[in-house]
Amino acid sequence: MKLADRMDCLGTETAFAVSAEASSLEEKGIKIYPFHLGDINLETPKTIRSAALKAMESGKTGYCPAPGIIELREALAEDVSASRKINYNLNNVSVQSGGKPVISKFIMSKMNPGDRVLYPNPGYPIYESQIEFHGGIAHPYGYLDTEDGLVLDFDSIEQGIKEGANIIFYNNYNNPTGASSSISEMKKLADLCVSNDLFLFSDEAYFDTLFEGESHSIVSMPNMRERSLILYTFSKKFAMTGWRLGAAIGPSDVIDEISRLNVNDESCTTHFVQHAGVAGLKGSQNEVKEIIRILKERRDLAISILKTIEGIEVHTPVAGFYLFPKITEAMRNRGFNDLEEFRKAALKETGVSFCGRHHFGKPLDNENDHYIRLAFSGISKLHLEEGLYRFKDWLSP
Amino acid sequence: MKLADRMDCLGTETAFAVSAEASSLEEKGIKIYPFHLGDINLETPKTIRSAALKAMESGKTGYCPAPGIIELREALAEDVSASRKINYNLNNVSVQSGGKPVISKFIMSKMNPGDRVLYPNPGYPIYESQIEFHGGIAHPYGYLDTEDGLVLDFDSIEQGIKEGANIIFYNNYNNPTGASSSISEMKKLADLCVSNDLFLFSDEAYFDTLFEGESHSIVSMPNMRERSLILYTFSKKFAMTGWRLGAAIGPSDVIDEISRLNVNDESCTTHFVQHAGVAGLKGSQNEVKEIIRILKERRDLAISILKTIEGIEVHTPVAGFYLFPKITEAMRNRGFNDLEEFRKAALKETGVSFCGRHHFGKPLDNENDHYIRLAFSGISKLHLEEGLYRFKDWLSP
Repeated sequence: MKLADRMDCLGTETAFAVSAEASSLEEKGIKIYPFHLGDINLETPKTIRSAALKAMESGKTGYCPAPGIIELREALAEDVSASRKINYNLNNVSVQSGGKPVISKFIMSKMNPGDRVLYPNPGYPIYESQIEFHGGIAHPYGYLDTEDGLVLDFDSIEQGIKEGANIIFYNNYNNPTGASSSISEMKKLADLCVSNDLFLFSDEAYFDTLFEGESHSIVSMPNMRERSLILYTFSKKFAMTGWRLGAAIGPSDVIDEISRLNVNDESCTTHFVQHAGVAGLKGSQNEVKEIIRILKERRDLAISILKTIEGIEVHTPVAGFYLFPKITEAMRNRGFNDLEEFRKAALKETGVSFCGRHHFGKPLDNENDHYIRLAFSGISKLHLEEGLYRFKDWLSP
Repeated sequence: MKLADRMDCLGTETAFAVSAEASSLEEKGIKIYPFHLGDINLETPKTIRSAALKAMESGKTGYCPAPGIIELREALAEDVSASRKINYNLNNVSVQSGGKPVISKFIMSKMNPGDRVLYPNPGYPIYESQIEFHGGIAHPYGYLDTEDGLVLDFDSIEQGIKEGANIIFYNNYNNPTGASSSISEMKKLADLCVSNDLFLFSDEAYFDTLFEGESHSIVSMPNMRERSLILYTFSKKFAMTGWRLGAAIGPSDVIDEISRLNVNDESCTTHFVQHAGVAGLKGSQNEVKEIIRILKERRDLAISILKTIEGIEVHTPVAGFYLFPKITEAMRNRGFNDLEEFRKAALKETGVSFCGRHHFGKPLDNENDHYIRLAFSGISKLHLEEGLYRFKDWLSP
């Protein structure tokens, strides 16, 4: 059957293929250590579940306004204003069915076909997919591996600006690399946006999943509020990935357009789930703290084991779900040149399942090293430890 | 701020403005009779609410596969296969966050810019909006008012085909008109699709909200299964409008593309809500029958009152939430020429709130009569009666 031509430009998350492989091995009785999952294997806080039930039972089961219920928009505006030290109100908030819809709706609202859009690579693969699907030119920028961790490759960003980019996707506390910007790096990027009139999409999915210090948003920098849109999600902080609740937060003219897309695309986000979101934001944060404590424990354990493996180097992320070790030497020692072959062999022979750098965008010209992404959000401490030691033994037989 | 040019082509549901007007009068203490709502003021069945709670408590709160959970896809395939007397399996089903997302995702998957697409007018305004937003040519077709009810205006359909249309939107048990096709009308439309190689979008939102007889789907007609996509929704039958659960059902190649859009747009539909949907389909249908009994009672009462009002003619719909009385004469008797002025005056002076024909597409050239849409899904029997008598008194003072 003839399908629309535009579908040829749509990408996907190739990481899903890794999940499928792992499941199929598991069905054959092989024990799998799931480091590939960007999902979280912890319960959604009881406060939130109770609020959802209460809302469902009290009839919050009909349509609600397309931009979201007032209570949730106000609660989000308040929360994000306080944590970013800027001023938003409910007119700056459009509730979404998760964080992901913010990406496509932002692109539809703001990008014209032919516009050049900068995006991180390695990065969340949906940026590139949606830019190209809607007729934009996806212009990748990379990272440089330094002693202080991965830093933005400003040469590639400036090259994109020189070639006419007018929009940039930025994901501090980055998926898959775990990279976070120093204040000075963030300031440099903000200055580039202001002086070159770039609009910035700030994917802040991991802003609240911080293990130490204080989170920073580029939107707080001078003159950035009016040229930035925040992707906010309940998924990570509140262990609500499957609930599908998030929001676009930014200047009201973009928000109004995004809400018009809500009317056209899905009417509204699940009504009682929005009330659950209010409870998450306004209720006790003890359960949230416990989620972060557990994640930090896993991160620390994983780092401590990885640091004992020959041929592996790893930075310690301050936020998020992911480690991004450099494994160039370990691969070479084991006789592999190809990352995908290495990944498949490790999965088959040890059950340790992870994604590679190539699942997060096509490698750039200047890359000589190999990296894998180890997610610690969907695996217990016990299995994390067992899995990483099996991986270590396999690497140094 | 500069926004994307495509946003100029995006329409909306102007009926939302009527809701806003009604709410604002209500806040001033005016009693409102809400005949404008396509929402339903009945509880979601307990079977469904209990299943949602059980799923939420048993950890169905993480991501699930983008096309939906296997159990729901299988249950939908089974249900729709049986009721449409054709054969679907889970590969023919892509779960969505409501029925509405099927419209945009179908258009993105199947329609190229410049394609001519037939759509009903009066009809659900999102068809036209999404066709034009994605660069298609929206070609309206109307209805003729006959003794047997509203029938498809085949002249306008054939004109569209002559001008090159390759896709048609069809909404039996139509919103806003309540029109339903006879078997012969449906057969005639199916034959036109087959002989002119049209792909048909069958919006079956009200297929299961039937008050008498048996529902029919055009997809059951010879050679239609492979050229049709069904919009399925849980919203109406199960009083689940605010839950946001629906599905695209059709040939697997279109379904695969729609599921690729799920990956890109929202990852998946709320996980535990999908389990609630399974319970709705597989559990006792007693509560569903009660919803339909209540709706039928309201329909009958409204029809009986409308038939006593001078200058109003109305057909009795066999399904759905809506009456679509012709009010040309009643308007003239009351001194109105403009439908919007009439609507506003009725709302202000009686509190009776309804939409007009103009909320469902721009009136066509050959229309000489005026119609309003009275929804009986969101108003109790008591208020329905009181409201319609106030309307009657206002019309014949």
